[in-house]
Amino acid sequence: MKLALIGYGNVGRALARLVAAKRREFPFTITGIHTLRHGTAIDPGGLPLDPPFGPRAPTIEAFFEAAGAEIAVELTTLNPSTGEPAMAHILAAFARGMHVATANKGPIAHAYAALREEAARAGVGFRFESAVMDGAPVFNLWRGCMPGVKVLGFAGSLNSTSKVAIETMERGGSFEDGLSAARQMGITEADGAYDIEGWDSAAKTAALANVLMDARTTPLAVGTRGIGRLTPERVREIARQGKTVRLISRARMTASGIALRVRAEVLDRGDILAAAPGTSNVLLFHTDLMGTFGTVSIEPGVEQTAYGVFSDLVNLSGGGAKPYNRQ
Amino acid sequence: MKLALIGYGNVGRALARLVAAKRREFPFTITGIHTLRHGTAIDPGGLPLDPPFGPRAPTIEAFFEAAGAEIAVELTTLNPSTGEPAMAHILAAFARGMHVATANKGPIAHAYAALREEAARAGVGFRFESAVMDGAPVFNLWRGCMPGVKVLGFAGSLNSTSKVAIETMERGGSFEDGLSAARQMGITEADGAYDIEGWDSAAKTAALANVLMDARTTPLAVGTRGIGRLTPERVREIARQGKTVRLISRARMTASGIALRVRAEVLDRGDILAAAPGTSNVLLFHTDLMGTFGTVSIEPGVEQTAYGVFSDLVNLSGGGAKPYNRQ
Repeated sequence: MKLALIGYGNVGRALARLVAAKRREFPFTITGIHTLRHGTAIDPGGLPLDPPFGPRAPTIEAFFEAAGAEIAVELTTLNPSTGEPAMAHILAAFARGMHVATANKGPIAHAYAALREEAARAGVGFRFESAVMDGAPVFNLWRGCMPGVKVLGFAGSLNSTSKVAIETMERGGSFEDGLSAARQMGITEADGAYDIEGWDSAAKTAALANVLMDARTTPLAVGTRGIGRLTPERVREIARQGKTVRLISRARMTASGIALRVRAEVLDRGDILAAAPGTSNVLLFHTDLMGTFGTVSIEPGVEQTAYGVFSDLVNLSGGGAKPYNRQ
Repeated sequence: MKLALIGYGNVGRALARLVAAKRREFPFTITGIHTLRHGTAIDPGGLPLDPPFGPRAPTIEAFFEAAGAEIAVELTTLNPSTGEPAMAHILAAFARGMHVATANKGPIAHAYAALREEAARAGVGFRFESAVMDGAPVFNLWRGCMPGVKVLGFAGSLNSTSKVAIETMERGGSFEDGLSAARQMGITEADGAYDIEGWDSAAKTAALANVLMDARTTPLAVGTRGIGRLTPERVREIARQGKTVRLISRARMTASGIALRVRAEVLDRGDILAAAPGTSNVLLFHTDLMGTFGTVSIEPGVEQTAYGVFSDLVNLSGGGAKPYNRQ
């Protein structure tokens, strides 16, 4: 199947390497790459990893037309407060009858129900495994491994920057040292406020609730408090009690609807939500038939995010499940 | 679809309740139940939760013939050193062209490759989600959520009895107190040796390696040391260092094949393999494309085991995945 990539940063390049490495088993071809900075590259026969970029296609529609692809892969940098430009790209792809895979959580957090309905109307698929937990099975787990199960709530430690900041303070550093460490690991942006104030977690919380619980919510409806007021002294006092702090996303069904919140919570060091090392994430589903279970992702990087998108592509092409008698 | 249950203990009864509760969405009917103790019950129109048992069908084939079911559900008590009688029941079902779902790890640990090939020859499905981790997605995760991924190894804390024994000793109890606690929770058998000596973990290790890594091995090939020599004094000494002990299953690819072992390992209290509370289990996959990620199951019970079998039934009936635009 032919792929049109929108955005070609670290994830896009890792995805292109993965597609090239797996071409024999999964015959995907990247026929177009559209970027803000480098321009647009098109080759109906397949682009190389470092393609020659020409002038930028004037519109996203013109890019799709030139690429002639069946799947649009949305990997642009996100404006988290609106979900744009990813949202416009996704709708343009649906309008052309293209499937969409995206690693952007914004559209899922802000407008999942509308996008799901638009995809259904267009008769195309819409996948976003890497929107939360960098490609570890979350949405695919829910979609494929939990038949008949109702998700009643969830709890997750989903933000790596806050985790690195807290662990740095536990080891004697300052808040700013923690942010520098996270920046050096490439997991946070310049000022880190989006992570530290809890907005990254709020977007992930809304995205999960929209998909798993049909919450039809947005990040603005998530009761969010970040770790901005946490001091090294307080962190170390908590550590002396054998505990630690994590920015935790929670959802639960209540009589009046689905309650969503993000909070810095004090947890036992042996709590499963606190236990994953470094930049790892944990997500627990609370369910009716399967009790509480979940997914952990250990120190994921850009390759894992790219793999999540790759798994979306395989699913969109209809080749997801292994036969039971696989050798 | 019609189901023939072999064995009707706690898991079988929980499964029957689940099938009854979900009949509208998933139209399964239990037409036969075959037990060693109570005899055999048959009703082509569907059996109630407490069926009237008649004389025991003389053979498993006679039972299948009377039940007229499409799926055999194997839930007998296991002889762990042979995998029998489950193995014979499964082969008899395949020979009749029936799909099989089982919660027994024995057949998967002892003879998975042969059973898989037999199922393929018969053109039927074979599922066993509850064989490891009581119904939490392990085999279904691998089957449906990891396209193109190669499992290079795994690490798991998979035995609840040893965990309860260690935690009891950490709180000041004796080894025997720990075993009593596990017995009272209904998670271990009379003498507990099967769990404590590591044989339960070895069977789970072999089952996972056979399915995820095509190891074609048996529990006898797993280098196994249990926690039988662990004393309360040693456990408390480890606890004073901020650490704990877990019976850990590990697999890894080596130049000379797949190395499998079960050991009591000393872990940091904040290690993800140690962190799940009480009877919870954790399994991490080491992979080529997705790094390290995994599944946790928090305090599972018989309902979760029954749900794992139920998910197998749904998959065997072809109705596993949710549509992307599910409301």
